[in-house]
Amino acid sequence: MTDDKFLSELVDALSGGGAGLQRPACACPDRQPLPSRDTVIEIVEGLRSALFPGYFGTSELTADNARFHLGSTLDWIRRRLREQIKRGLCFACTDPEQGKRQDCDGRAEATTRSFLSGLPALREILATDVKAAYEGDPAATSPDEAIFCYPGMLAITNYRIAHELHKLGVPLIPRIVTEHAHSITGIDIHPGATIGEHFFIDHGTGVVIGETCTIGNGVRLYQGVTLGAKSFPLDENGHPIKGIKRHPDVEDGVIIYSEATILGSITIGKGSVIGGNVWVVDSVPPGSRITQRGPSKDQ
Amino acid sequence: MTDDKFLSELVDALSGGGAGLQRPACACPDRQPLPSRDTVIEIVEGLRSALFPGYFGTSELTADNARFHLGSTLDWIRRRLREQIKRGLCFACTDPEQGKRQDCDGRAEATTRSFLSGLPALREILATDVKAAYEGDPAATSPDEAIFCYPGMLAITNYRIAHELHKLGVPLIPRIVTEHAHSITGIDIHPGATIGEHFFIDHGTGVVIGETCTIGNGVRLYQGVTLGAKSFPLDENGHPIKGIKRHPDVEDGVIIYSEATILGSITIGKGSVIGGNVWVVDSVPPGSRITQRGPSKDQ
Amino acid sequence: MTDDKFLSELVDALSGGGAGLQRPACACPDRQPLPSRDTVIEIVEGLRSALFPGYFGTSELTADNARFHLGSTLDWIRRRLREQIKRGLCFACTDPEQGKRQDCDGRAEATTRSFLSGLPALREILATDVKAAYEGDPAATSPDEAIFCYPGMLAITNYRIAHELHKLGVPLIPRIVTEHAHSITGIDIHPGATIGEHFFIDHGTGVVIGETCTIGNGVRLYQGVTLGAKSFPLDENGHPIKGIKRHPDVEDGVIIYSEATILGSITIGKGSVIGGNVWVVDSVPPGSRITQRGPSKDQ
Amino acid sequence: MTDDKFLSELVDALSGGGAGLQRPACACPDRQPLPSRDTVIEIVEGLRSALFPGYFGTSELTADNARFHLGSTLDWIRRRLREQIKRGLCFACTDPEQGKRQDCDGRAEATTRSFLSGLPALREILATDVKAAYEGDPAATSPDEAIFCYPGMLAITNYRIAHELHKLGVPLIPRIVTEHAHSITGIDIHPGATIGEHFFIDHGTGVVIGETCTIGNGVRLYQGVTLGAKSFPLDENGHPIKGIKRHPDVEDGVIIYSEATILGSITIGKGSVIGGNVWVVDSVPPGSRITQRGPSKDQ
Amino acid sequence: MTDDKFLSELVDALSGGGAGLQRPACACPDRQPLPSRDTVIEIVEGLRSALFPGYFGTSELTADNARFHLGSTLDWIRRRLREQIKRGLCFACTDPEQGKRQDCDGRAEATTRSFLSGLPALREILATDVKAAYEGDPAATSPDEAIFCYPGMLAITNYRIAHELHKLGVPLIPRIVTEHAHSITGIDIHPGATIGEHFFIDHGTGVVIGETCTIGNGVRLYQGVTLGAKSFPLDENGHPIKGIKRHPDVEDGVIIYSEATILGSITIGKGSVIGGNVWVVDSVPPGSRITQRGPSKDQ
Amino acid sequence: MTDDKFLSELVDALSGGGAGLQRPACACPDRQPLPSRDTVIEIVEGLRSALFPGYFGTSELTADNARFHLGSTLDWIRRRLREQIKRGLCFACTDPEQGKRQDCDGRAEATTRSFLSGLPALREILATDVKAAYEGDPAATSPDEAIFCYPGMLAITNYRIAHELHKLGVPLIPRIVTEHAHSITGIDIHPGATIGEHFFIDHGTGVVIGETCTIGNGVRLYQGVTLGAKSFPLDENGHPIKGIKRHPDVEDGVIIYSEATILGSITIGKGSVIGGNVWVVDSVPPGSRITQRGPSKDQ
Repeated sequence: MTDDKFLSELVDALSGGGAGLQRPACACPDRQPLPSRDTVIEIVEGLRSALFPGYFGTSELTADNARFHLGSTLDWIRRRLREQIKRGLCFACTDPEQGKRQDCDGRAEATTRSFLSGLPALREILATDVKAAYEGDPAATSPDEAIFCYPGMLAITNYRIAHELHKLGVPLIPRIVTEHAHSITGIDIHPGATIGEHFFIDHGTGVVIGETCTIGNGVRLYQGVTLGAKSFPLDENGHPIKGIKRHPDVEDGVIIYSEATILGSITIGKGSVIGGNVWVVDSVPPGSRITQRGPSKDQ
Repeated sequence: MTDDKFLSELVDALSGGGAGLQRPACACPDRQPLPSRDTVIEIVEGLRSALFPGYFGTSELTADNARFHLGSTLDWIRRRLREQIKRGLCFACTDPEQGKRQDCDGRAEATTRSFLSGLPALREILATDVKAAYEGDPAATSPDEAIFCYPGMLAITNYRIAHELHKLGVPLIPRIVTEHAHSITGIDIHPGATIGEHFFIDHGTGVVIGETCTIGNGVRLYQGVTLGAKSFPLDENGHPIKGIKRHPDVEDGVIIYSEATILGSITIGKGSVIGGNVWVVDSVPPGSRITQRGPSKDQ
Repeated sequence: MTDDKFLSELVDALSGGGAGLQRPACACPDRQPLPSRDTVIEIVEGLRSALFPGYFGTSELTADNARFHLGSTLDWIRRRLREQIKRGLCFACTDPEQGKRQDCDGRAEATTRSFLSGLPALREILATDVKAAYEGDPAATSPDEAIFCYPGMLAITNYRIAHELHKLGVPLIPRIVTEHAHSITGIDIHPGATIGEHFFIDHGTGVVIGETCTIGNGVRLYQGVTLGAKSFPLDENGHPIKGIKRHPDVEDGVIIYSEATILGSITIGKGSVIGGNVWVVDSVPPGSRITQRGPSKDQ
Repeated sequence: MTDDKFLSELVDALSGGGAGLQRPACACPDRQPLPSRDTVIEIVEGLRSALFPGYFGTSELTADNARFHLGSTLDWIRRRLREQIKRGLCFACTDPEQGKRQDCDGRAEATTRSFLSGLPALREILATDVKAAYEGDPAATSPDEAIFCYPGMLAITNYRIAHELHKLGVPLIPRIVTEHAHSITGIDIHPGATIGEHFFIDHGTGVVIGETCTIGNGVRLYQGVTLGAKSFPLDENGHPIKGIKRHPDVEDGVIIYSEATILGSITIGKGSVIGGNVWVVDSVPPGSRITQRGPSKDQ
Repeated sequence: MTDDKFLSELVDALSGGGAGLQRPACACPDRQPLPSRDTVIEIVEGLRSALFPGYFGTSELTADNARFHLGSTLDWIRRRLREQIKRGLCFACTDPEQGKRQDCDGRAEATTRSFLSGLPALREILATDVKAAYEGDPAATSPDEAIFCYPGMLAITNYRIAHELHKLGVPLIPRIVTEHAHSITGIDIHPGATIGEHFFIDHGTGVVIGETCTIGNGVRLYQGVTLGAKSFPLDENGHPIKGIKRHPDVEDGVIIYSEATILGSITIGKGSVIGGNVWVVDSVPPGSRITQRGPSKDQ
Repeated sequence: MTDDKFLSELVDALSGGGAGLQRPACACPDRQPLPSRDTVIEIVEGLRSALFPGYFGTSELTADNARFHLGSTLDWIRRRLREQIKRGLCFACTDPEQGKRQDCDGRAEATTRSFLSGLPALREILATDVKAAYEGDPAATSPDEAIFCYPGMLAITNYRIAHELHKLGVPLIPRIVTEHAHSITGIDIHPGATIGEHFFIDHGTGVVIGETCTIGNGVRLYQGVTLGAKSFPLDENGHPIKGIKRHPDVEDGVIIYSEATILGSITIGKGSVIGGNVWVVDSVPPGSRITQRGPSKDQ
């Protein structure tokens, strides 16, 4: 290898200039590194073992050892989550006067406690999701199998964890949690969506549930269902205006078949059944049956 | 950190009560841990290197060393697979009188042998799938590339392995094998489906093939195709009745384009071509050409 | 375990015969192992940290240390990429007279340099993609979040890297790079496709963009969009003829909603909006609005 | 690489013949693999964190979390130790009628319980060793430092664990435990030796304490001290006769300086001080002061 | 496994009571975990690659890339070392009024800078040690080999790093650095010892150099040499009095052969040669030749 | 962290100047990286599993699988060893005209073959060493235990491997092999030493056996024994003259007790017994009994 300044010149070309992709500097004396995706994923896996004991993490649980495993797991989750939340707060911070370290530490600790205190309620609702999966899929041989193997259960668990963090105002971490599930399952649920109990997604690849969506109890979705936005207003700079309601409300007991696309701030009335591959941009009343028009046949 | 009983109280809240998500105890003196996803995946990767020598695992194969690598790989597969099958049998066991350890060991050993004895036949059919991939995709530069890079080949290989285990009555492991492929490729094939030779799935994300589906020879599917169930009868408890035929039969030579949804116990006749994005819930005769009705245009 | 020749007989059954799945031997004195997927992925992650400094790789960058990290990263990328390109050349080599080692080394080195020299330009175009993501999604809280979390950004970055390698004639490696993104995001972009600036894919699961596709500037795609081939001519041996134009041209400013299937060598005119779940096999003029015919309702 | 049968011939040469280094086969239906060094070491590290909480393993212990970590650690130790003890029993088994699996399982379980039940007492004696280290070394800045950094503490802890297992009749595992300490510290204590409380080894490299040695309370050794055997009787086959007393008895309060060699079934009387580099093969009365004869000087 | 409270009772037995081996609690709001041995070792390996570029770390160095690797290595060392020093300060802190976090952060940063600023001087003296190794061992084939393979070089490098940290008042970390070398090489040098240039230890196993030792220039030691303390005064509580001079001064050009034991605050005069296996507790004048008295022979 | 050029200035200070510790550049077009210690250690562990099948590597060997494991192990050893030998040749190369790549490849291949062809003979002599260990230590419960646990066996195996490579003229690699054993066991045997069969080292910490030493059959050494050089002539530059005989010859059947130091080109006659802690610099006739003069006693 001749010694030809190739590398130095390449570094010069890449480090000068204004392409503007480098993360901006910041004057905070307590600036944190970015949240660690790997650590966030470890935390989620730890939570999964605390929520479904014996299915994830140590599987040899007895009445004599279960509390010990639960306690030691929750203890390391608590420390790591607090650290990641603090990093998330730092990531989202844009205050030129920021850097009051005690606040960030305090907020991270308080948020972590609030989140952990909500775990028992989280487990209650997940139990209804397991029931919905077992009752909604004839191929399920037992609730065990749904917990251990179903991508829908994984995605819903991650969503419910992320949603709690989102409600507590944690930046970035909820998104990492749902994107992790998205990567594994192809199911993309925004942490801001609101979803009732007994929720089941079968197969799931390609499902998208948008930020301002609300979903009632006992809803069932199949793969490829989109609950999305149709369009969105821009501000004077051409940037989309944030925080406007723009996704569907899906009422109790609705079933939506594969690849249906439902867009905009519309309502799918209680108990409706939406057939596969339809494009729905208007509200439908309760009890509707919507299907694609019959195809052309040329045989 | 003050020492405030937060953790102890959280453990109490989570370990008491009836949310019912803890894996049930069992009195069997030989109770096994759950099957290990990581080990099952290692086994599948080992099988892939045995079925496609030189493409996976050691790539420097010669006439002088190939048998040694094959033999040592099959030997560790045999031991680990036997162990995982035993765990799977334990997972599915609901016999209150169970715990006859010799039976579980014996069944695991016999099943492992039967499975391994079927590998040469498995390889024969996979060779037809490679041919179908190369001939079915103009972008394929060589059969090598299909073996090494195509997600469809990965998913079909995992399915064919899982299907053999399913036929041998192994619980849970087949599902782990196909879910692993589902996670990587977005292709979800139930281990119970029956699929002929020269099978090709191009791109594949979002494909779903249900448990009671049958697929003939020389079938080609594109991404997003669903071969699913439309509805299913419930028993008196409101639970779906298991084991009823509820998915399509797809005959020889059928091509189904992207995002088509085909539901129910119907037949897609030999040589039919199903266009993308259609919703098909009735049988179609051989030689059919089905396409979505033309869209509305407003330009 | 009795000692019963089971393994030896299985090895005999699998190593004899003509199933033809073993990688063919080759007489080249400098034959290389196959490219390593893990190393290619490490290279891509290294490039991501060089293209988006502070977001990936070391996050504590300052004016004092940034050049050092960039230089050391690019140096190891250079050496590993050269090695993998050489393996790729060997993989694709079918010359019976091959084995002139100096050529492979020289080509690998020259190709690596050309690729690295193009990184500043690659970064310029990625900056437009980040802008498009932030402006195209009301849920995006900052461009930071798009860089760090959006699957579309990951898939486009991998595609742009792969496309540069593809243009330089590197075999196999580009495919590994885009398949890695496909596996994580469900977005399958062929390295041969040509895509303009300000490109945004939202959610993305199930998107397929074919080899001979061209896409203009400022195009936005949603999940499940297919830009594919409808059919392809076969040669006299029944093999598809390679290298024929068979995918759509999508002009500037087009928006395509979820699950739309657009097939064949057609043109989607400038500024058109294609609704979800449609099947389009004919060109549409600029400014078109295409939507699925309204569904059947039975309520 | 030409394909020249080199490997096959080498395998033939190595697998035929009578060099006799292959582990003998055995007909037991429940034959276990060898104990795993890595797992035994993990167990020892787990025990170290249970015996010295806060110094090894998790260091953020509070009154609220300590019991949880202790319990979960002891639980996995229990399961893994039982498995390793079972393998050790199998390793040592030479009974042609063996193979009564229930016995091995039962013995492993009972032995594991006995061992774990002895941990509180083990901790009591280790506390005296920590005190001896702090008081015996002017360079020690705190007892903390002795626990966390001193090789002598590591070696003594491993020895005390191994000695308990040795007394319970566990084969092989105790040896692995002390050899692990030997490898790290250069201190080689046979698990069969008997050693009183307040024991301190400073620096330690090269210390050897033989199988039938007894050491009283408050003894201090420096590096390179040998408490060994001088010779041993052979049986009629020329094999050494096992189990005969052949190492020294060192009484309370003895100090032995570096590199002293003390051999045979002799007694070093209470409170004696043995200087460095001496060769002692006869008993010495209590209170002795033994030093090497002055050196030759030639200056 | 019956569910018999064995584990709970064991935890009670171990967590109650007064054996006193748990790390004491502390009220500091910024309490740090213990220093991490693994991280300290990574830092030392990073320093080794910065001090001996091309021999450790990346070996493909050129004029074009060397500065980049050096800079990125020193940058991560800086961050990790600062963190470990802060933990070390916390470990040693006994101030009931402590907890002024800014001080610990500030001290850690200042100490890290001072240490790193001394690296060029450290490298100068290590270059004299390499020369001494090559010239002091006829078996050395090149200085390269001494750098890359000699345990003496490893131990001296670790000592010189630890000594600089010791002089800066860093607690615990220096000890971890020298104990790591001790574990690998059997050479135990206290970080507080003072050692001149051109220092060589051959083979080295069993060498001990005490805290208050001073060693001149051009000294050569062989394996098993002890430069230790003979005895030490106790305070009124029976604890050894810390910080008193109690180890030898070894003047320039001395050679000490294997297993010699030299104890106490004595002087080995310039240019002396001490033979192996002697016990020396009195000063010797410059130019001495000391050997063990001839052995008894009985042949 | 302020942005203060500290890092840049430190890099300048360390990369400028003449301390001369950077590995010299070299103009060879095929320059190799340094040998990898980790890979060399993997090779040695692979060889250990091939030489002691069932004790290291896979322990579940049967007549049906043993050849497969042996063959696949030897195959990867062959490829990795060839690569490391090539790197070693490059490390030692000082030819200004070097760079004839074909030669290095060819030499590496030929040397690897020669080495592997000698494995059956190597195994024969190791079998005598196992026998010597079992018969030489009353604490050994079986030959199995000696193979699996004894540090002396590990050190002798590494030495015998290294010695074969040394005889074939391989640079550096043999030293890495014996230093690895030295680090684990404290036993330092130079690869150039010549050692007969039935060799046993008990405990072993601190043993040193020099480059030009010869040892007969049936010799037994204890910990701390040095067979070293007393002095060595320098050339006109003050460098030691390489390759001169300077270490002892130890004849058949000699026993040497712990910490004995035997220096220079002398002979220890057949069947002699050398007591511990003696300093021997003159030859002793066959059958000698040498012990340290009795110590001073002051009691």
